[in-house]
Amino acid sequence: MSQTKEHALKADIDYYQARISKAQALLQEAGIDWLLVGPSADLVYLTSFDAHLSERLNLLIITAEGSASLVVPTLESPLVGLAGELASMHTWDDHENPVDLVKSIIGNADGKKIAVGNQLWSAFLLRMQSELPGGTWVESVPVLRSLRMQKDALEVEHLSRAATRTDEAWEEFIVSGAISGITESEAMGHLRALTEKRGVKGVWGICASGPNSASPHHGTGERVILPGDAVIFDWGGRYDGYFSDVTRTVHIGKPSEEFTNVYNIVREANQATLDAVRPGVALESLDRAARDVITKAGYEKAFLHRVGHGLGMEVHEEPYLVEGNSMPLEVGMVFSDEPGIYLEGKFGVRIEDSVLCTEDGGKRLNEATRDLIIME
Amino acid sequence: MSQTKEHALKADIDYYQARISKAQALLQEAGIDWLLVGPSADLVYLTSFDAHLSERLNLLIITAEGSASLVVPTLESPLVGLAGELASMHTWDDHENPVDLVKSIIGNADGKKIAVGNQLWSAFLLRMQSELPGGTWVESVPVLRSLRMQKDALEVEHLSRAATRTDEAWEEFIVSGAISGITESEAMGHLRALTEKRGVKGVWGICASGPNSASPHHGTGERVILPGDAVIFDWGGRYDGYFSDVTRTVHIGKPSEEFTNVYNIVREANQATLDAVRPGVALESLDRAARDVITKAGYEKAFLHRVGHGLGMEVHEEPYLVEGNSMPLEVGMVFSDEPGIYLEGKFGVRIEDSVLCTEDGGKRLNEATRDLIIME
Repeated sequence: MSQTKEHALKADIDYYQARISKAQALLQEAGIDWLLVGPSADLVYLTSFDAHLSERLNLLIITAEGSASLVVPTLESPLVGLAGELASMHTWDDHENPVDLVKSIIGNADGKKIAVGNQLWSAFLLRMQSELPGGTWVESVPVLRSLRMQKDALEVEHLSRAATRTDEAWEEFIVSGAISGITESEAMGHLRALTEKRGVKGVWGICASGPNSASPHHGTGERVILPGDAVIFDWGGRYDGYFSDVTRTVHIGKPSEEFTNVYNIVREANQATLDAVRPGVALESLDRAARDVITKAGYEKAFLHRVGHGLGMEVHEEPYLVEGNSMPLEVGMVFSDEPGIYLEGKFGVRIEDSVLCTEDGGKRLNEATRDLIIME
Repeated sequence: MSQTKEHALKADIDYYQARISKAQALLQEAGIDWLLVGPSADLVYLTSFDAHLSERLNLLIITAEGSASLVVPTLESPLVGLAGELASMHTWDDHENPVDLVKSIIGNADGKKIAVGNQLWSAFLLRMQSELPGGTWVESVPVLRSLRMQKDALEVEHLSRAATRTDEAWEEFIVSGAISGITESEAMGHLRALTEKRGVKGVWGICASGPNSASPHHGTGERVILPGDAVIFDWGGRYDGYFSDVTRTVHIGKPSEEFTNVYNIVREANQATLDAVRPGVALESLDRAARDVITKAGYEKAFLHRVGHGLGMEVHEEPYLVEGNSMPLEVGMVFSDEPGIYLEGKFGVRIEDSVLCTEDGGKRLNEATRDLIIME
């Protein structure tokens, strides 16, 4: 399969070396000896290497003190780019066992603490656990999330660009004609094309109409959009390797009083989360801010999910804005603010923006209108 | 993100129930108590459920004897389809820990042997290992591969259709005009469009021209194709959930004697692998058949990879045709036959077909011409 080269920031080796050094400092702090990262956004974040995810092991090995190593299939070694300067390369041929290379780099795992990238395939972890006995294997999340959650100025710029382009697609979409009479797939295809036209890549999307809008992760299908429908559009894509993720809900024709009421509650909940953003508050308090509004209005049981998730090189990443997450909000975090109310058999409403935490509070990256839009 | 509903075969509940029953028999044979499968082709294979791959855990739990269970996020529960009839559903909300559900289903892991789907994210495995102590965790591959490797008649039909449509795209491509003067990306875009036109979805592809063709996993780029280039096209896609995967190498203008010679050697090696196919021979002997041809011609060191990989619901899957794999070839296996010679700084040649093992030997699913094609 071919590589998508678009993933990485245009940045130099020092930019990535600084990230690796920070990761090493965090490893030392956590008493972890090794960090192992397979193909993933984490790997791109640390080295710019958008490695092929497959049964052929690519693995970055970072020691708490000392150098980094990269285990890579011989035939993919021409693809490593900058990563070849950040880490010493160890290539393996198809008839060889890459875990032998890992062993030759790590040596004895006995008594060592080894953190593993969260998306590494279990098959590789199980092989390493079996061939490197005596180690303690732990999640890398506590180390890597503190790096990836705090976006630097360059990352915020990329996220803003992705958000703005996606907003512009929406503004064009809502004035470009009727969507009743066409299918969810067709409507989503139209919005996708408007988003891709603005340079956003890998656009994905949910269009959920009528009773389907009451299912938060509905699979866009062949249902024909009808007058009287609520229609949720939840979509986004990558721009220079960073994601947008927006949701807007429209109504086809004159809405009922109930719909308008629910729409206004969701909009108020979205605003309440934004207003609650300030450095130092617990992440769960942002979820609670939206939930309080919805609970007070009597729709507590119809808000089926957390209020948001981090956004960056992945469309879902740390931090998660969910009850039970007492981690503090920090300047530079970017996350979705997406309360919803879902009434089974009737309709759903969700409004979602991306929000940056600044020293002065929350700043929306999305500014597509949140007014209730009536389409035909 | 929206779900791709196209992944599953059009088959009824008995079709999937039979697969689960076979998996249970294999678990008993291997002395394994539980099989845990996350979002993956394995999950689609066993239940038709094309679950969302994300930080929200979806997990199928199959006991060696007894019933199957499905752990699924509440907001994704409307998507399970047939899987909801094959397994008892256990939903979890965003503020809950899905591993608590796994524990409530499994009970005590002490002394149990638990197989884990190869693509489950390590983060989930590490959490389960920590919260379900005392178990022995092993790879699921030895159990699931024997199911997935042997394609049934319906699967072979799907693979044949995918192959034929991809072949037809090639036959149109090579007579539809010059490719010198355009970039690799543009040439690949043209071939992709011809393939998608025939209903093949998610088309990926490598176009590697001139010296780039000497890198087997070259990332298609902006190099302009020139007279005198060798150009490798390696592409495919899904048709009704099953993959095609084809490689052809063309030459722009009159080829050198060296190129023609190398082309003929690779073609002979591709044929040698096909001729070596018969039930019962070791899989590595197919790699050796191609390698012998290339070694005899003096290009041993220029054949940088195994001769092939299984093909089905994934573009790379078991079985792997590689030195060291002594597993026997079986009727119903489908795999790629893709020898190549790569001369750094000069050019590369690869020819790849999909091959089915029948009782009478190998049968190619691809029939796009293997003659040396000269393009402009």
